[in-house]
Amino acid sequence: MSALSDLLAFQRETEALGQVMGRLGWDQETMMPRGAAPQRGEEMAALEGVLHARRTDPRLGDWLVAADPQTDVEKAQLREIKRSYDRATKVPAKLAAEIAKVTSESQGIWAEARAADDFAAFEPTLDRVVALKLEEAQAVAEGRDLYDTMLDDFEPGATGDSLSRMFASLRPRLVALRDKVLGADTPATLNAVFPEDGQLEISNTLAAAFGYDFTRGRIDKAVHPFSSGSGQDVRITTRSDPADPFNCFYSTIHEVGHAAYEQTVDPAYHLTAIGQGASMGVHESQSRIYENQLGRSRAFTGYLFDQMRATFGDFSVKDADAFYATANRAEDGGFIRTEADEVQYNLHVLLRFDLERALVSGDLKVADLPGAWNDRVEADFGARPLKPSLGCLQDVHWSVGLFGYFPTYSLGNVYAGCLYTALRRDVPDLDAALEKGLTAPATAWLGEKLQRHGSLRGPVQTIEHATGAPVSDTPLLDYLEEKFGGIYNL
Amino acid sequence: MSALSDLLAFQRETEALGQVMGRLGWDQETMMPRGAAPQRGEEMAALEGVLHARRTDPRLGDWLVAADPQTDVEKAQLREIKRSYDRATKVPAKLAAEIAKVTSESQGIWAEARAADDFAAFEPTLDRVVALKLEEAQAVAEGRDLYDTMLDDFEPGATGDSLSRMFASLRPRLVALRDKVLGADTPATLNAVFPEDGQLEISNTLAAAFGYDFTRGRIDKAVHPFSSGSGQDVRITTRSDPADPFNCFYSTIHEVGHAAYEQTVDPAYHLTAIGQGASMGVHESQSRIYENQLGRSRAFTGYLFDQMRATFGDFSVKDADAFYATANRAEDGGFIRTEADEVQYNLHVLLRFDLERALVSGDLKVADLPGAWNDRVEADFGARPLKPSLGCLQDVHWSVGLFGYFPTYSLGNVYAGCLYTALRRDVPDLDAALEKGLTAPATAWLGEKLQRHGSLRGPVQTIEHATGAPVSDTPLLDYLEEKFGGIYNL
Repeated sequence: MSALSDLLAFQRETEALGQVMGRLGWDQETMMPRGAAPQRGEEMAALEGVLHARRTDPRLGDWLVAADPQTDVEKAQLREIKRSYDRATKVPAKLAAEIAKVTSESQGIWAEARAADDFAAFEPTLDRVVALKLEEAQAVAEGRDLYDTMLDDFEPGATGDSLSRMFASLRPRLVALRDKVLGADTPATLNAVFPEDGQLEISNTLAAAFGYDFTRGRIDKAVHPFSSGSGQDVRITTRSDPADPFNCFYSTIHEVGHAAYEQTVDPAYHLTAIGQGASMGVHESQSRIYENQLGRSRAFTGYLFDQMRATFGDFSVKDADAFYATANRAEDGGFIRTEADEVQYNLHVLLRFDLERALVSGDLKVADLPGAWNDRVEADFGARPLKPSLGCLQDVHWSVGLFGYFPTYSLGNVYAGCLYTALRRDVPDLDAALEKGLTAPATAWLGEKLQRHGSLRGPVQTIEHATGAPVSDTPLLDYLEEKFGGIYNL
Repeated sequence: MSALSDLLAFQRETEALGQVMGRLGWDQETMMPRGAAPQRGEEMAALEGVLHARRTDPRLGDWLVAADPQTDVEKAQLREIKRSYDRATKVPAKLAAEIAKVTSESQGIWAEARAADDFAAFEPTLDRVVALKLEEAQAVAEGRDLYDTMLDDFEPGATGDSLSRMFASLRPRLVALRDKVLGADTPATLNAVFPEDGQLEISNTLAAAFGYDFTRGRIDKAVHPFSSGSGQDVRITTRSDPADPFNCFYSTIHEVGHAAYEQTVDPAYHLTAIGQGASMGVHESQSRIYENQLGRSRAFTGYLFDQMRATFGDFSVKDADAFYATANRAEDGGFIRTEADEVQYNLHVLLRFDLERALVSGDLKVADLPGAWNDRVEADFGARPLKPSLGCLQDVHWSVGLFGYFPTYSLGNVYAGCLYTALRRDVPDLDAALEKGLTAPATAWLGEKLQRHGSLRGPVQTIEHATGAPVSDTPLLDYLEEKFGGIYNL
């Protein structure tokens, strides 16, 4: 056996065990009886210990030195294994254990503080999390920028400065568009009750329409929609609210975007280091283009309108144009990121990016976070959140140590903008298919150009390979201005 | 840290990982999309590799020598860890891998041969499995009897000779009872259709009635009913057939017997080497006493009859006495073990025990198995199976290398007989409770006397501790003769 084949065989088992960990997470959110939580914690900790030992196994270091990759695929495999190995071996075991312990406890403290609308109750914990994550970044950085080091966990190769430049051009046009949209007449809401059975039936129809392979996946209900697993077993969850069927439908389509990416990766890459999506940002580009550019398009909402009337009978919306506007309704006073429309969503993300960068650089103290948050919301949204649960306590991410994660949401939207422009260029009759609920021309294009390649290339290279053009935020802005200009007669 | 505490900490992680393996098995039978099977195979193989490495870790050998257990619990922990370590280290890795590979393939070959009723198609494979299992037993035995070595995997301490003596006294009285029962008038069958919804509703009621803790478990449908997991997460499955609600109800009660045992083990033993049932035989004693001595009693069937009439309305059975007879109906010509009634079931098991012992000793060649099987069936049941699928191809066990497993089924019934006698002695008003669907007096007695102790003691010691009397087959025979004598007016 050569060093390369030994390395790849070892990695394959590690990937398989990683999939097992993902399956435990899925089970925990969907099937696990509630009394099993403490035991499950021990099971996952034991498996995490096994995974950590494998990811830092000294043989990996030897194999990485000795291996002589020839093909692009072999080089990509080594690049990904090396990235994981370098990261894992640089963090002292004691620090990793401390971070695991503190972030596990802090999630509960955050949840209680949010429920009580009491930032002070969370402040010392967040202080500790920030300090530990800084210590971790210092161990990994070797002189590089600490925030860039954090970004590497989610978006390899991205830097705070480059993101900052991109977002700086995004923000003013988004703020201006938001002002115009909210100054116009607001479309009606769906003012009816939509029984859960019918919602879940349509949800299944939508998943199939977007190419979700049910022979290698399943849909269950969970409190928070998510996608889980890679290769032959990629499961998603959705949820339903009788007053808000869009929540169910677009959660499903969003998660199908993530899942289709994983299901479409070349089977030759399954259970290897390049067998999953290229980054969080690229992943989000798939979920968002499925959800928004395709799922919330005038063409596809026409199909969805028919599906809903067939299932629920007539409801308050008078025609397909009105339905399209309702499905893209933007509302003032929405301080919550996860409830935001396409126009306002990125403004929520951009503020988190700037604030977390300031926390990492030391320019912002944790104690000053609520004030800084509210100032920024007022600048972009024209009003201040009345309580922390509508402000800086709304998201779980920082409590569990996720710094560098938020910008991947907007990066995903930027990537989706680039992909959508290229898609329309290559598939001119897209709308005619979407009107009939046929997404295959779009999903086949995405599959062929992007999804099947997994992590063969880095994130930016993955997008640029698919589009044949450099990444830019212009396509997203043009798309948003055109779409919402049309809906709101701007 | 002392050697003992190091050992126990290490074992705790191994137990947690063992639970993960069990959860993957559950998922495979209940939730997994069918296209995920190959990937799941790799996931389970990778985890099995981790478990095997831990079970043969050289540190275990050192700790076992250095540890100085003081309490009975510590001594029991070491006894169980040592048993597993000795067994795992004695089998050469190459042989273990070969057995895993051959038995994994042979299950499919067996299934095809059974479907085609073609023993010759399975014979060479079974020959190979027997040869490999003999080689494994030789590696472990160190001069002991090979079949006794195989028994140790399922019923530590049991020997072929002692079981043979016990079964020799069981067989003639069972054959005589069978002749009498089948010579009498046969009770009616349930001649109606029972919708699945109602069956599953009653199944849940029965599970709750028998003390199944739904906060630490759940019930799903599967092709074969089973119980899975220990401690805080013990799940069961059931099935339903509109023509045969007893199949659903007694499958559920049987599996609740297994699950209640695991759920009732002292929480201090969870995720330790003594945190599970003491043996397959003791486990089966719990499932069988729940199912038969309790669930198929005159008292409890009266309650079940009311439940069924409340759910399904009146059906063909005229009164509770007739219902009791129907629930305990014995039928001639039933060549299939899993469909056998209480009287005939052990005769099926005893023949497998004698034949597998003969295969292991070399007295019986695999090629001669069908003839020997049919001769024995004719001797005990008065007729020969017409085809191998009704004969020696009916059970999966041997194809996957399970030799020494079958006798634990009858041992479970013998143990259940002993426990039931002691239970009636200690809880004289049992029937009054069972008539109302209240099993707590029985299940609390079993929980206190037996279940909570897990594997603190060996199997026979576990039963004798619970009953205060030596294990004997007489209580089972007395119980069966009395019960069926009453139903069939013998």
